[in-house]
Amino acid sequence: MNCPIALALERVGEWWSILILRDATHGITRFDGFQKSLGISPNSLARRLGTLVHAGLLERRRYSERPPRDEYVLTEAGHAFRPVLVALYAFGISHFPPEEPNVRLVDKESGTDVDPLLIDRLTGHPLDEEHATFLPGPSADDLLRAALERRNGAS
Amino acid sequence: MNCPIALALERVGEWWSILILRDATHGITRFDGFQKSLGISPNSLARRLGTLVHAGLLERRRYSERPPRDEYVLTEAGHAFRPVLVALYAFGISHFPPEEPNVRLVDKESGTDVDPLLIDRLTGHPLDEEHATFLPGPSADDLLRAALERRNGAS
Repeated sequence: MNCPIALALERVGEWWSILILRDATHGITRFDGFQKSLGISPNSLARRLGTLVHAGLLERRRYSERPPRDEYVLTEAGHAFRPVLVALYAFGISHFPPEEPNVRLVDKESGTDVDPLLIDRLTGHPLDEEHATFLPGPSADDLLRAALERRNGAS
Repeated sequence: MNCPIALALERVGEWWSILILRDATHGITRFDGFQKSLGISPNSLARRLGTLVHAGLLERRRYSERPPRDEYVLTEAGHAFRPVLVALYAFGISHFPPEEPNVRLVDKESGTDVDPLLIDRLTGHPLDEEHATFLPGPSADDLLRAALERRNGAS
């Protein structure tokens, strides 16, 4: 598999795992915290935490020896997942807005709610369909190549 | 449920649906195109396409009357999901890079690969942990409020 999006999703593991990474980003670290937040069974949670540790997105740390208790904190790769959560947050806020959101993403300096925009770090151009496009990579199959070419030709 | 991230995920439906939106973003529109790209059963694909149509992310359009055939194109909300795909792409490329990616996201003007960065449209500040933070919203429960306050106090 050569699709970076699918590879990223494969490493994260499954649906719930995105919400575990969300909770970890919000500062939840302990098993019972994740469990209370997500309302899933201990077995499911343990398996998903294990997948995220195995993928290198969370690190397990012992915080109590007696009784033995671990906490789970984001690794560098786990922190790097944050833009995906911010993009999901922005999409949710703008297209399926809750009446009373449980979180707000704010600019630290001004304290105002942010309006997330993806740009290219180099050119500063927004990464919208007007300025950026997907092109076939070296391993694109015929189906993908044809779809992208048709799409780019039409735009 | 008041979490914009969870609401966004709920609307999208499930894991595979992200890959359907990816394919639609790449310009695939027809049932057999999605099926060939994803390698899932016709029943699963039909159900997931239905979920995405119901959620308002895809629109079904008849392109042939005899035999009756539909295609699926992104709605405005479907197009608005693109930043999530771009963020997943950037995360995949930087942290789990395929040897030969099947797609490249390029700046249209220069043709060079982009380096995606999330900023606040208003202030121009990057939305990294240094410049932006999640705060409890009006409906945050005690667990989330405590986690965010501990996290923001520690940073």
